[in-house]
Amino acid sequence: MLSATNRQIRLARRPQGEIAAEDWEHVTEAAAAPGEGQFAGRTRFVSLDPAMRGWLDDRRSYLPPVGIGEVMRAGPVVEVTESNHPDFRIGDLVVGTFGVQEHVVSDGRGAFRIDPTAAAPSAYLGALGMPGMTAYFGLLDVGALKEGETVVVSGAAGAVGTMAGQIAKARGCRVVGIAGGADKCALLTEELGFDAAIDYRSEDVRKALRAHAPDGIDVYFDNVGGEVLDAALANLAMHARVVVCGAISQYNSATGVQGPSNYLNLLVRRARMEGFVVFDYAPRYREAAREIGNWIAAGRIKVLEHVVRGTVDDFPRTLQMLFRGENTGKLVLELL
Amino acid sequence: MLSATNRQIRLARRPQGEIAAEDWEHVTEAAAAPGEGQFAGRTRFVSLDPAMRGWLDDRRSYLPPVGIGEVMRAGPVVEVTESNHPDFRIGDLVVGTFGVQEHVVSDGRGAFRIDPTAAAPSAYLGALGMPGMTAYFGLLDVGALKEGETVVVSGAAGAVGTMAGQIAKARGCRVVGIAGGADKCALLTEELGFDAAIDYRSEDVRKALRAHAPDGIDVYFDNVGGEVLDAALANLAMHARVVVCGAISQYNSATGVQGPSNYLNLLVRRARMEGFVVFDYAPRYREAAREIGNWIAAGRIKVLEHVVRGTVDDFPRTLQMLFRGENTGKLVLELL
Repeated sequence: MLSATNRQIRLARRPQGEIAAEDWEHVTEAAAAPGEGQFAGRTRFVSLDPAMRGWLDDRRSYLPPVGIGEVMRAGPVVEVTESNHPDFRIGDLVVGTFGVQEHVVSDGRGAFRIDPTAAAPSAYLGALGMPGMTAYFGLLDVGALKEGETVVVSGAAGAVGTMAGQIAKARGCRVVGIAGGADKCALLTEELGFDAAIDYRSEDVRKALRAHAPDGIDVYFDNVGGEVLDAALANLAMHARVVVCGAISQYNSATGVQGPSNYLNLLVRRARMEGFVVFDYAPRYREAAREIGNWIAAGRIKVLEHVVRGTVDDFPRTLQMLFRGENTGKLVLELL
Repeated sequence: MLSATNRQIRLARRPQGEIAAEDWEHVTEAAAAPGEGQFAGRTRFVSLDPAMRGWLDDRRSYLPPVGIGEVMRAGPVVEVTESNHPDFRIGDLVVGTFGVQEHVVSDGRGAFRIDPTAAAPSAYLGALGMPGMTAYFGLLDVGALKEGETVVVSGAAGAVGTMAGQIAKARGCRVVGIAGGADKCALLTEELGFDAAIDYRSEDVRKALRAHAPDGIDVYFDNVGGEVLDAALANLAMHARVVVCGAISQYNSATGVQGPSNYLNLLVRRARMEGFVVFDYAPRYREAAREIGNWIAAGRIKVLEHVVRGTVDDFPRTLQMLFRGENTGKLVLELL
């Protein structure tokens, strides 16, 4: 049976710079029952993603901003508890943009069932979910990755970064990861098969890139922006591709985004910098999931997750971990 | 007969920020006679180009820097005065990287004869020279221009800008130019057929772009960088292409290049920013010159030149005009 209440995290006001506790509202409302053609579900895992920061700002982007007073947008894994929908049965595990709340009611639009025998449910939020798709299409389509090239990934220990680096390895590239801290760097080279790792907190990234990619970077997959992006731009190979996936170092900046002052190297190196939004590739998710699934099954890609166990009330502080670099791999909040 | 002396402009030291008079050395040496397989020539027109500023800095670029004590690099039109070379006869007009000097001696490598009956000699430094080639390949290849698209050109009244805008018009696009001052803007719309012009000195470029390109910019051809680049990035259409041709607003900056803080719009608009160097297109110059020549002959493209008459000693002050926005169209120094 559904519990009678539904705890939710709503956006109370727009953050200025870093997100503050007061930017959220913790609300308890009555749990709704599913109507005709609907199902109800209990949230099992909530996805936490750097992109969420952008959804909180009031500006034109690839999705409308989350409205003040609205349930925070998120893509959780939900277990169906009650169903009047022909395609969803009790016990099914479903992924969709259900928001940060304990209980959901859905007509099934944009929701899809996952197969928990093929992979852990939470993997559908990471390696087989948006981060995996982002890494896959960003590298292979936007980055036009070719076997034997030198690939550099920033935010390399994050959800997208761990996947991007491993996909590049699986495709026969030399891969250098940039991450914060010795532990993350050791993980990249010792566990995930990266050829080298650079600790941006303790190393001069520009010099380290010159050492680890002496012939220049063919594909730079950027998750962080800022100084690290500039260091990569200073080390491009001819005809390099810079994939603009994100800029986590800049999202909380109250003074505005720092533009890459080395962008004129795009000219010198006949290179391009290109952005993308993973949703555009939805018609090809199945193709990507199949290939990633095969790599996982073959042991060529390891699924790295950072699972925090708690309640929806832990969402705000868990989200902060992303911007403080406290997670390794895909950050997930598992609801107890 | 050759005069017995050859006046030259050499680089005395590397400029810091704006080029100073003391950065140049004015030298008189004996004019050399051509050896076996060489020709000698008298310089008629010296090309002045924004790219020259970059050649003075001591850093890795698409060409090595001009060395201290070396004759300043430039591509003049030279008239052959004496020849021991089978391909060049007295009276031939020749273009090549001969440098800023009155007299040249060449073995003919990298030099090519021009046809003064097809176009004025100076046109081979502008519309039919590097600026024309730059506009042509930048728009059509790097920018992948398609008929009916909205094109914005910055530095629109300059050598490359006037050509880029007119080529885009000739290819059936809607064209908005950005330039400094009411006179230049009037020239763009009244003489060169631009659909609209924005005066960056007196207008809010971002707002003006929104007004003149309400559906967004499909191709932005950037010659200036800085604030204007940011304004364009804020107004991109989906799948836009930003062609990085130059950044004249930044070349003299002693505090470093201002990076485009709106670069994350590349992501939002699934757009790309790409650099190029025109020399890579050398095998296709003939194709471009033929098409541009046809447009000129048909009256669809006007050749706009700003000719300063003087001696090589006037090179330094003439070069300054580029960075002060004092030229309209291709800036050329005609030697008297």
